[in-house]
Amino acid sequence: MEQPANHASAEFAERMRAFYDELKAAVSPESVSATAADRLVYSFDGSKQQGQAEVVVTPVSQDEAISTVGLAGKHRIPLYPRGAGSGLTGGAVPTERGIVLNLTRLNRIVEIDTGNLTATVEPGVICGDLDRKAAKHGLFYPPSPGSADYSTLGGNIMENAGGMRAYKYGVTRDYVLAQKCVLPTGEVFTTGSHAVKNVTGYDIARLLVGSEGTLAVMLEATLRLIPQPPAIGTVLALFGADEDALAAAQDIVSQPLMPRAMEFMNDAALACVRNYRDLPQLKPEANAALLVEADGPSLDDVREQLAKMMDVCRAHSPLSVETAFDEAERAALWDVRDSVSPAAYQLGDYKISEDISVPRSKCLEFVRGLKEIVKGYPDPPVVYGHNGDGTLHVTFMFDGQDDPRIPAVEKLVEEMFRLAVSLKGSLSAEHGIGLTKRKYLGIELSPVEIRLMKALKRAFDPDGVLNPGKIFPA
Amino acid sequence: MEQPANHASAEFAERMRAFYDELKAAVSPESVSATAADRLVYSFDGSKQQGQAEVVVTPVSQDEAISTVGLAGKHRIPLYPRGAGSGLTGGAVPTERGIVLNLTRLNRIVEIDTGNLTATVEPGVICGDLDRKAAKHGLFYPPSPGSADYSTLGGNIMENAGGMRAYKYGVTRDYVLAQKCVLPTGEVFTTGSHAVKNVTGYDIARLLVGSEGTLAVMLEATLRLIPQPPAIGTVLALFGADEDALAAAQDIVSQPLMPRAMEFMNDAALACVRNYRDLPQLKPEANAALLVEADGPSLDDVREQLAKMMDVCRAHSPLSVETAFDEAERAALWDVRDSVSPAAYQLGDYKISEDISVPRSKCLEFVRGLKEIVKGYPDPPVVYGHNGDGTLHVTFMFDGQDDPRIPAVEKLVEEMFRLAVSLKGSLSAEHGIGLTKRKYLGIELSPVEIRLMKALKRAFDPDGVLNPGKIFPA
Repeated sequence: MEQPANHASAEFAERMRAFYDELKAAVSPESVSATAADRLVYSFDGSKQQGQAEVVVTPVSQDEAISTVGLAGKHRIPLYPRGAGSGLTGGAVPTERGIVLNLTRLNRIVEIDTGNLTATVEPGVICGDLDRKAAKHGLFYPPSPGSADYSTLGGNIMENAGGMRAYKYGVTRDYVLAQKCVLPTGEVFTTGSHAVKNVTGYDIARLLVGSEGTLAVMLEATLRLIPQPPAIGTVLALFGADEDALAAAQDIVSQPLMPRAMEFMNDAALACVRNYRDLPQLKPEANAALLVEADGPSLDDVREQLAKMMDVCRAHSPLSVETAFDEAERAALWDVRDSVSPAAYQLGDYKISEDISVPRSKCLEFVRGLKEIVKGYPDPPVVYGHNGDGTLHVTFMFDGQDDPRIPAVEKLVEEMFRLAVSLKGSLSAEHGIGLTKRKYLGIELSPVEIRLMKALKRAFDPDGVLNPGKIFPA
Repeated sequence: MEQPANHASAEFAERMRAFYDELKAAVSPESVSATAADRLVYSFDGSKQQGQAEVVVTPVSQDEAISTVGLAGKHRIPLYPRGAGSGLTGGAVPTERGIVLNLTRLNRIVEIDTGNLTATVEPGVICGDLDRKAAKHGLFYPPSPGSADYSTLGGNIMENAGGMRAYKYGVTRDYVLAQKCVLPTGEVFTTGSHAVKNVTGYDIARLLVGSEGTLAVMLEATLRLIPQPPAIGTVLALFGADEDALAAAQDIVSQPLMPRAMEFMNDAALACVRNYRDLPQLKPEANAALLVEADGPSLDDVREQLAKMMDVCRAHSPLSVETAFDEAERAALWDVRDSVSPAAYQLGDYKISEDISVPRSKCLEFVRGLKEIVKGYPDPPVVYGHNGDGTLHVTFMFDGQDDPRIPAVEKLVEEMFRLAVSLKGSLSAEHGIGLTKRKYLGIELSPVEIRLMKALKRAFDPDGVLNPGKIFPA
């Protein structure tokens, strides 16, 4: 083990040294790194925020993780838990001198219990890996964030990840039954139950979901699985105007129909995709698209669901409505949607991409209001996302983090958050507050609610050791 | 308004008088009662625990409720929120001198938002009334406790009610999106979001679900609805032995199949039903029954689901397997199940009826263990419940609350709780801890978790005004 870097504060250096001495006795040397490269690489996430850890601990066992958390607590050294670092709000980025706890090697799928329809996992398991393993047993883990192929379940749980299938299946929280965690005291506790029903005391298992690593460090979670739906079908509807697409979407909701996914893309999103790759299914005259997917017990049922959804689309002047049932054809329709995020990087290498949510019935009103807000701004945002559950990703692209357009856009973003909240929505649907949104917290939450949340934080972590600087305004 | 009863403590009497004086200025006289009858009637619940309130406040408006809670907090007088009083663990029963806050007149369905698939309700709305009103819009509120026709949504939310349809649809918590509440400070706050996705700060909206009125008083909740399933079918399978019924049930889970309800009844349950009413569908030689119900997009689909479930039942030596699709025929099969609870009262007028849960795959193992536990006891329990989600109601009947058999049964119940927890289950699936189970809390929860829960309680209610004496051991 290398010694950590020098510190301005002698008192902090003394605590750090004491932590380090005890850590050496508890954790294998291979689990600890203080190289300059690791201290930087593990202090960065998908938000492109950069911190600098004093030391990176990558436990190979739950015991090593428990020791590290307990010693951080004992010596009151900030500890930043981290999975794959794909978070988009800086939730894993160290804001002060401290320890990064990289949980990616705690990556066992401990059990898939086909008799109880549950999986027990460590935090470092990749979301998509669980879903694929469950599928081998005819089971399904519905939460599917865009990052499913690289983000970890620990991160998904701590940010309450959402994604594509929330319209029908809900979010990560709806699949968490139990957790095993460690507190900064070093105490390990389990909470929740392997049974579906449990109302013994307060619901700490769910309170931890979305808590962004600020209350406890998760070592294991037991997740609910459901049977795989046997049949899936997909519709791509293209429209001349985004208002038509969004009106069709809202009519699908109020039928009521229940697709498993409903994704919207605006004109700027489609323009990016067209420049990025040649997709014949994306007609040149389309200015908006709706991708709707249904699942069900049989292909007949899915065809019937899609027929109703297409009828709704046809009442809103679509340019075309196309369906697909086999996997390759469905994937071709999804290519339009899946290309948006990479395609947007043609407009710049740095993005401000928000994840507001509104009630499903308010997407059209939100987009109208957004257009008013950005009216004077020359580069209108790429707008896309899971509008079936009321989530829209509003994305502005820039040339680097010093782009002179950024201050103006930050003002627009704040107005946009106010709009979403005025429509009874939220400033974060699924990315969390982390570092980048903490200054906006008061737009959505009242002083009373913020006070309660700070009291909850103190109940778990009175010394403020776990992921300090996150969620709450500085 | 009558004055409240005299008190032993002069200091308490002084606080009570000050509360009363201020209450008179804030609340209509018709909303307050201190008659001996009301003080008794509203201090009782489905557990047959009896307390005695000093005063019963029945607000006609949210403002009256807010004033009452704020004044209780100001004068540090225990306040016991209450709905229909159908709870089974004494959650609504006053344990100390204080105020009962009867919320049954806050019973507006504020909105059914068909564009957003949500309902906003006050706490006094009857659960089944919401479901019936939603059905008129083609919508469905899945949580369905046995008390659905008389219990209130406020109580359902505060106890995280479960019921018959949790196998497929989950529990009350899974349908709560947002809440408006009042703290003992008199401060009103809203938490959660009308959007499906929301990860702005800690999940207080869900933490309040199952908190048994100990953290805040709910004034309004926004609940998620889903489309009504178009077709429903029911199977009643009778068996010679409970082990066959439970083995069949576990095989249905691990197929995997997803009925919306799966209910078990043991020999003692069926014997009670036979003595209670003449049901030709309940064959005399049956010693166990399984009622399984599926829903789906079409009758064909439901028939196909039921065919698979019946195949599983047939592999476990049933005496008979019967299906029903139309409403009257389905109701006839449900009569067997619905009669268990009233029929049990033939065995006595007082019951100890628990609601343990275990992982779905452990019901058979639990029932085997239970038989060992009660081996020496002459009156074996009536065992029934939602075994599809792992919930079993173990019910002992007595002649009054002074029946000499009760102390022995309390010991058996404690052993039974230990068994459920050893199988990774819970000592309360859906009734809550309240008053009657608080002494058992430590069987399931570790000292660390209890300490965290007490700290959460202090974060919301530092003076211990809200529903004191509940959840935590005295």
